Amino acid sequence: MQVVVPFAVENPKTRLEPVLDPDERSTVARAMLADVVTAVADAGHEPTVLATEPLDLAVDAAPVAIDDRPLTPAVNARLDVADGPVAIVMADLALATPAALARLFSTDGDVVIAPGRGGGTNALVVRHSEFRVDYHGASYLDHRAIAREIGAAVETIDSFRLATDIDEPADLVEVLVHADGRAADALRELGFELDASDGRVDVARVPAARD
Amino acid sequence: MQVVVPFAVENPKTRLEPVLDPDERSTVARAMLADVVTAVADAGHEPTVLATEPLDLAVDAAPVAIDDRPLTPAVNARLDVADGPVAIVMADLALATPAALARLFSTDGDVVIAPGRGGGTNALVVRHSEFRVDYHGASYLDHRAIAREIGAAVETIDSFRLATDIDEPADLVEVLVHADGRAADALRELGFELDASDGRVDVARVPAARD
Repeated sequence: MQVVVPFAVENPKTRLEPVLDPDERSTVARAMLADVVTAVADAGHEPTVLATEPLDLAVDAAPVAIDDRPLTPAVNARLDVADGPVAIVMADLALATPAALARLFSTDGDVVIAPGRGGGTNALVVRHSEFRVDYHGASYLDHRAIAREIGAAVETIDSFRLATDIDEPADLVEVLVHADGRAADALRELGFELDASDGRVDVARVPAARD
Repeated sequence: MQVVVPFAVENPKTRLEPVLDPDERSTVARAMLADVVTAVADAGHEPTVLATEPLDLAVDAAPVAIDDRPLTPAVNARLDVADGPVAIVMADLALATPAALARLFSTDGDVVIAPGRGGGTNALVVRHSEFRVDYHGASYLDHRAIAREIGAAVETIDSFRLATDIDEPADLVEVLVHADGRAADALRELGFELDASDGRVDVARVPAARD
């Protein structure tokens, strides 16, 4: 199956600004992208990175397609020309494993959705030629409504790993607890570690590592 | 399988204080408990509510056991006297479905963990007589370590529904998007609705409903 992994090259992950400077955000975003692309390939499918500008991706065998439009029109342009099933997997699913993705890809349905937290759509398989995406707002509900309008059968995938997109500082806890790929390595190299000192778990950054 | 659902009767869900007064928090917490107990029963197992004080639960056929100690010693006291597998399922898993719970209960392993966000343990099956819980801090990692020490094999369940405990105002979005039980009804009766007006999804409360 063709698997599209959209990636905004410039100024990614702005909501991590409280804990990471722009270069560090770019490093972590690319590490997550590489983890996702690798997991897709390890699940036996063909990832294509859909980037907003040229990108030197340090992962073998993932072609990069360029489309500088926002997420929704860029993805829909791929659906317009698809001649088979297409999956769209967000680039910040740092917890994605081949097993979790295989569950997504192998589930029957005209449209198969892995919901993200906050009403989002983190991963999607489209097997209906009329289905188009709309990532604005509560996209999980919108995608269900779009499917209903065109008579497409929807299935959902109940996966914590696919529901966990890494957007905010608190999300970094999930990477350090549940992931062991490039993103987890990058965070540890930047000095992040788990901090459970007050009974709840947070990330702390070892100050020396920032200098 | 015996399924224990711990529940703190007094002053539950304090982190929902910004959006719910004490009576409302109690209403929502009990609705979530009733949803969880019903889902356990619908999955074909026998829930017992482990409450800190007597509780009139508006759900048929769920016995209530009283233990006024904190969560960890109260659960471990149940494990001390267990003569077979015991599952522990948190009472605030408002998105839990019989299917998600069946996946947990039917997975082989001395210890089967459904991780929660933030390094937590939202649901657990214990089939090893020496395993004891420790819910303080990063309990997911602690439970893995405890299992390792006693030579117990650990499996994990990758479930968004079981990973989503309802603690903070932002979590109410998940209930309104993905649940259709008593907790979702209670929130709607209290005036909560989804608000995607600024492109991200939040909950809004219709002011009149509060009066």
